[in-house]
Amino acid sequence: MSALVLPLLDRVRDPADLRALPESDLRQLADELRAETIDAVSVTGGHLGAGLGVVELTVALHYVFTTPDDRLIWDVGHQAYPHKILTGRRDRIRTLRQGGGLSGFTKRAESPYDPFGAAHSSTSISAGLGMAIARDLAEAAARARGETPARRNVVAVIGDGSISAGMAYEAMNNAGALRSRLIVILNDNDMSIAPPVGAMSAYLARLVSGDTYRSLRDTAKQFGRLLPKALYDTAARAEEYARGILAGGGTMFEELGFHYVGPIDGHNLDHLLPVLKNVRDAPEGPVLVHVVTQKGKGYAPAEAAADRGHAVVKFDVLSGQQVKAKPNAPSYTRVFGESLVKAAAADETVVAITAAMPSGTGVDIFAKAHPERTFDVGIAEQHAVTFAAGLAAEGFRPFCAIYSTFLQRAYDQVVHDVAIQNLPVRFALDRAGLVGADGATHAGAFDLAYLCCLPNLTVMAAADEAELVHMVATAHAHDAGPIALRYPRGEGVGVDLPERGEVLAIGKGRVLRRPPGARVALLSLGTRLAEALKAADRLEESGIGVTVADARFAKPLDEALILDLAGSHEVLVTLEEGSTGGFGAMVLHLLAARGALDAGTVRVRTLTLPDVYQDHDSPERMYAQAGLDAPAIVRTVTDLLPEERKERTRLRRV
Amino acid sequence: MSALVLPLLDRVRDPADLRALPESDLRQLADELRAETIDAVSVTGGHLGAGLGVVELTVALHYVFTTPDDRLIWDVGHQAYPHKILTGRRDRIRTLRQGGGLSGFTKRAESPYDPFGAAHSSTSISAGLGMAIARDLAEAAARARGETPARRNVVAVIGDGSISAGMAYEAMNNAGALRSRLIVILNDNDMSIAPPVGAMSAYLARLVSGDTYRSLRDTAKQFGRLLPKALYDTAARAEEYARGILAGGGTMFEELGFHYVGPIDGHNLDHLLPVLKNVRDAPEGPVLVHVVTQKGKGYAPAEAAADRGHAVVKFDVLSGQQVKAKPNAPSYTRVFGESLVKAAAADETVVAITAAMPSGTGVDIFAKAHPERTFDVGIAEQHAVTFAAGLAAEGFRPFCAIYSTFLQRAYDQVVHDVAIQNLPVRFALDRAGLVGADGATHAGAFDLAYLCCLPNLTVMAAADEAELVHMVATAHAHDAGPIALRYPRGEGVGVDLPERGEVLAIGKGRVLRRPPGARVALLSLGTRLAEALKAADRLEESGIGVTVADARFAKPLDEALILDLAGSHEVLVTLEEGSTGGFGAMVLHLLAARGALDAGTVRVRTLTLPDVYQDHDSPERMYAQAGLDAPAIVRTVTDLLPEERKERTRLRRV
Repeated sequence: MSALVLPLLDRVRDPADLRALPESDLRQLADELRAETIDAVSVTGGHLGAGLGVVELTVALHYVFTTPDDRLIWDVGHQAYPHKILTGRRDRIRTLRQGGGLSGFTKRAESPYDPFGAAHSSTSISAGLGMAIARDLAEAAARARGETPARRNVVAVIGDGSISAGMAYEAMNNAGALRSRLIVILNDNDMSIAPPVGAMSAYLARLVSGDTYRSLRDTAKQFGRLLPKALYDTAARAEEYARGILAGGGTMFEELGFHYVGPIDGHNLDHLLPVLKNVRDAPEGPVLVHVVTQKGKGYAPAEAAADRGHAVVKFDVLSGQQVKAKPNAPSYTRVFGESLVKAAAADETVVAITAAMPSGTGVDIFAKAHPERTFDVGIAEQHAVTFAAGLAAEGFRPFCAIYSTFLQRAYDQVVHDVAIQNLPVRFALDRAGLVGADGATHAGAFDLAYLCCLPNLTVMAAADEAELVHMVATAHAHDAGPIALRYPRGEGVGVDLPERGEVLAIGKGRVLRRPPGARVALLSLGTRLAEALKAADRLEESGIGVTVADARFAKPLDEALILDLAGSHEVLVTLEEGSTGGFGAMVLHLLAARGALDAGTVRVRTLTLPDVYQDHDSPERMYAQAGLDAPAIVRTVTDLLPEERKERTRLRRV
Repeated sequence: MSALVLPLLDRVRDPADLRALPESDLRQLADELRAETIDAVSVTGGHLGAGLGVVELTVALHYVFTTPDDRLIWDVGHQAYPHKILTGRRDRIRTLRQGGGLSGFTKRAESPYDPFGAAHSSTSISAGLGMAIARDLAEAAARARGETPARRNVVAVIGDGSISAGMAYEAMNNAGALRSRLIVILNDNDMSIAPPVGAMSAYLARLVSGDTYRSLRDTAKQFGRLLPKALYDTAARAEEYARGILAGGGTMFEELGFHYVGPIDGHNLDHLLPVLKNVRDAPEGPVLVHVVTQKGKGYAPAEAAADRGHAVVKFDVLSGQQVKAKPNAPSYTRVFGESLVKAAAADETVVAITAAMPSGTGVDIFAKAHPERTFDVGIAEQHAVTFAAGLAAEGFRPFCAIYSTFLQRAYDQVVHDVAIQNLPVRFALDRAGLVGADGATHAGAFDLAYLCCLPNLTVMAAADEAELVHMVATAHAHDAGPIALRYPRGEGVGVDLPERGEVLAIGKGRVLRRPPGARVALLSLGTRLAEALKAADRLEESGIGVTVADARFAKPLDEALILDLAGSHEVLVTLEEGSTGGFGAMVLHLLAARGALDAGTVRVRTLTLPDVYQDHDSPERMYAQAGLDAPAIVRTVTDLLPEERKERTRLRRV
């Protein structure tokens, strides 16, 4: 706990305590909640700006709605730290994103106040509509039994960045037709991770900046359309609270069947509370409340930052100074961005596409050099991929830079629009493998499985940052079909970077060491290579010769290399930072098909990520848990060498 | 060729011939094109209604735009038969959907007039925007070199059903912001496969039925906003052609940055031609032309059909009578639908969800029994899955019925909203495996690979229609987490259907035959079981004892059964109608991890779909090509039994 004096917050153990406070206390409570949020994140690091922007909204929602029976669904969930503090998790708030601690997102397993987990964007309206329909069906069944069901509200919060994703539109399209009671709070902070893009964002800005606001009387009438007489009077009474409520516009939402209210000031509780009460008591149909907030609100260093304090490491509260560790090597993201700039220097056909993650993907580096060839399409991975396919169909060389976990959003587009048509789109998959503090929802665990099964696709994984330079060059040169390159989160391993990338032979791996008489072969794909080399060192200390190879390609496989390794070693272990069904599976398919396993001359094991969703933790502990670090590799190998196992057992007994 | 007398069409070998005709001939040409389309589909079967609805639009587009240099992108592509007739493929039009013949969709490999292939919906605007940006970049580069680039138009057609998908919205959101010259034709026939649903559809209906149409002078003014002075005069001159053009509304599209024109009558060339010419000559920005058409137009039997002749088998042109083969067994789709009705009879929590495919998935059968528990969310697979997750989070038992190939659209939602949260959503994957005439774009080839890698998920495949009954019951009873059941297109194998489904033990397979001394084990997943049994019969005729097992579960595997089979046979062959990385890969991972391959006592092979996109053909030929029929299984096995191979070789030589 901090040394802050927070008398009101100290009395709020859960939202029921909050709801026992007089409204006049809420302003101070919000201030204390903001101070606590800042203090906690100063200790843990994490997402700061988004939470600060919704402090008042969080207080108002829990005050007006009877959570957890009323369902409150946050989208993305990285703005939910104040929500966590108010919902019984304050005592653990300084464990955020730490191993064994609170998740940095909403999570069903963590609290009944998190009715639906999140982390990827734009899911809240769909989930909320499902819950609203469940409520309707349960209510109808209760009424059929002669019971009077309690009234349950479903509230889905969504950001202005998130609402640009197709999924949110699909949900609104369905909600507008189903007419179920559903409250959508559009948290419009004009900012997701990067400044927002797209026509919807421009539309929202026009709504907010419009000077044709309706009078408050018109707003009351707007409620009146929605409410029966008794509630209409309530709405009219809201006038005294709600000075300054701005209503008007919202036609697009109204055309989609929503009742639109707003825009209202999301930091003014005198505006938020009466409006939320009114929509809570609205009799039917979906309502969208347009709330304008400011990311980073109330903390000067966050307000002043370009990203409004989106994600921070530990910092000093007074100065806002972040305690950034000096990197030992450039990040893979930076190496990708810089390599792409080089590839584009002499080739006008290179274009870069990002789905609202310019800095996360390194596309911002490319954008500085080639703004006219950079396309940030917003949170819209599906469109990003097919847009890239359209460019490729016209002879351009698009690099579509999307995190491994987010490319899941565009899987059908990869299959149907790119791979089947054999269009040379280059997929740059950052954050492939484990991601540490962001946990299971952001792990790039499945791309090898969901990509290696696709005909026409070439799949590479970089073993280090120098390899990434070569693979960007290789992807650039590969016009024969689609190609994906995957690389992990974080810093490179510190190798020298080549001045120019070398175009690699497609489907050819490399052997890093092969001592005479090696009994063991380690065949690594991607950055586990460093651990493979470490493991080889230790095994060689015990007198076991180890060949270490880097497959480079998960597809097509280096068949000659793999069959050679299998044919000339007693043990062959594959390594990858991905699920089953990926690289190791492809190796096994090959070895089985070619009869290389028939004679029993080689023992093969495939080391992959485990078949569980690994909770957030330090990368080191996650690798150890996954059995993908050097000690685990050594254990796997020695268990396969009977005399070594016996020796180890003997030594242990001595 | 047919006996039809089509003098104008006979003169049109490609669109250049079409453009040489006087406008006054186009009405007759459209009539001839319609007749030819009907005659061709009467021979081949296929998609009829959609093509008939766009005959005039097809003629007008190729007349006004200089295809193929101007890019014309059809969405879905099943309405492109008239387009194929006009673009050099008339001589092959009666090979549609036949092995070696024309595809039933647009296809880049087939013609330069198909600049982007389609088959799944809602991709055309994304692809078109990519092409428009490619054009802009190329033009800018040409200008920088001092050249004057030719003007190229990009036209993307999209249906009113397709525009409800999130991907289309993502593309419009981006197009509205990028302001590139792009022409979107909204083909509004108030009908995709089923009647359309959702708020967007209702909005379009209001636009069409609105009585506040602007005068033609206002329409000209609308063009005026868009056009420079000279063209404005052209637009004004259009008045004489364009009597009856209706313009107005379209606010939602305008808010997204599109210039909206329409609605106009899509069967009236006097309306279509001047409007298309005007938008062709518009100087900048995206334009949406709202064209109202009638699916099945001009062919009475199609106009009268409930589905407007969406998809037909061969038929008699005069009567419209389709030549339907009498089914030997109920379809898997029907068995699923009827089983689901039974599951729901005594359980109010069962709900069914479809994404615009009620009849294709059998959800229409459920809807008849339980309309209030049936949800057609429109073409919106992403939303469908997370909507189901919301229902599951509230204790309901949702069955989300989506074709295997279309679930690719919702992969991230399966991972992030369902599997990570371990919510018991039931996925019913129809059309798993090869699909015959619909070809590669509709093949359900990858679901085993993209689902088996996911922790928490249970994956089943039905070997026959009785097994499907059991698996629906099993999925219904499975509250522990998400579960998927896959089954193929078409009829069952004709086994007796059980009165009630039996709840299967999770992760347990079954042995169908195991003769004493069997040397070979065939381990099948799904409906290749029948071929496995046939292959076993043939092998036993040669004196080779064959065990045949049905794995039932691809995840979790029946480890005891598989290790037993591997430990007690010389040969183990897995069979599945899916890509590499799926069931066979999981079996190999297991056998490797448990050391079952170390001693070389069993030769293992995994038979999967080949690593190519198989073109449409008859299912039998496709299975043979894939090596997944009985003869291929026999070949695989005998090749693995050396003495049998020798014997076969000896016999061949004799």
